[in-house]
Amino acid sequence: MSASPLLEQLIESLRCLPGVGQKSAQRMAYHLLEREREGGLRLAGALAEAIERIGHCESCRDFSETPLCAICASGSRDRGLLCAVESPADRLAIETATGYRGLYFVLQGRLSPLDGIGPRELGLDKLAERLAAGEVRELIIATNPTVEGEATAHYLAQLARQAQVRPSRLAHGVPLGGELEYVDRGTLAHAFGSRTEITS
Amino acid sequence: MSASPLLEQLIESLRCLPGVGQKSAQRMAYHLLEREREGGLRLAGALAEAIERIGHCESCRDFSETPLCAICASGSRDRGLLCAVESPADRLAIETATGYRGLYFVLQGRLSPLDGIGPRELGLDKLAERLAAGEVRELIIATNPTVEGEATAHYLAQLARQAQVRPSRLAHGVPLGGELEYVDRGTLAHAFGSRTEITS
Repeated sequence: MSASPLLEQLIESLRCLPGVGQKSAQRMAYHLLEREREGGLRLAGALAEAIERIGHCESCRDFSETPLCAICASGSRDRGLLCAVESPADRLAIETATGYRGLYFVLQGRLSPLDGIGPRELGLDKLAERLAAGEVRELIIATNPTVEGEATAHYLAQLARQAQVRPSRLAHGVPLGGELEYVDRGTLAHAFGSRTEITS
Repeated sequence: MSASPLLEQLIESLRCLPGVGQKSAQRMAYHLLEREREGGLRLAGALAEAIERIGHCESCRDFSETPLCAICASGSRDRGLLCAVESPADRLAIETATGYRGLYFVLQGRLSPLDGIGPRELGLDKLAERLAAGEVRELIIATNPTVEGEATAHYLAQLARQAQVRPSRLAHGVPLGGELEYVDRGTLAHAFGSRTEITS
């Protein structure tokens, strides 16, 4: 029996966060009430506002509170480069790690016929139109290196070729800072097969 | 650069949760926006309501949205038993695991002179009054088995004796289901020293 029904309700609500079970939810609720009431109120406000106002960018399908997201609306990006990613998190990872200055297309998923996710669900009709419009020179395919991601990449490459756009793919190989001993066999075999010549 | 300032604000706000860094906050924000908008709105509401309305019980200092918490207000608890715990989480743990039917006193901390936490900050003046009132027969001291918790327990036991109340302490020893090999030396020494006779 908890001392407070409102507290129980808060703990229950916190469990909708990914990776948060009963114990973590309790810890979070107690922490917020004991030491972070101000932060908690700020979080409540930010959450309600974000959920009410964030939709999808009309052009790239990423999350955005405006019809066009800041990247698609920017005048300083190279509109000849388009990078297709599976999720907003992938887009953010590329944006943070690389100096890429082109545009993005966020699939919000990957081809998975068994789950009923086909080209239409990923907005590929829209992507095909955009490729056909002629502005895009290169489609950089950055889907995840999983079976479904690879199938999606294959499909995207075909779309690009049909529209006379050059498709490209992120390089696979041994991760930087990794040790060969601990690299999985598939990656190692791929890296060995696609070895590059040392030129200078 | 994120596509949405509101999303950035949400990620920043999520970081006030304990154990949540930049990466987890991102994952939580994307999860809520992609798959849990309803749960997210519920969480925002529960959070704002809990923070605005939950204060402390006048009697036991636990969290409560009413002047007296449900346990202190209950007519079916034994008012002769009082269990002192450090935090609301400890109270919940005891309430869930044991069949205890007495009342609680939540210290909301432990004696820690270096951090400026003395008897007054833990409400021990109020506890002393309550013990002196004569209703309480036994004070069960359930502070944590840490150095500061033990010091607090020692102080509480003195308070109880001054008021002619019997102090008791949770038993220490080998945890159930544990293996002796992995029990720390202090616990093992204590369990060995306080071995109990097998009677039947």
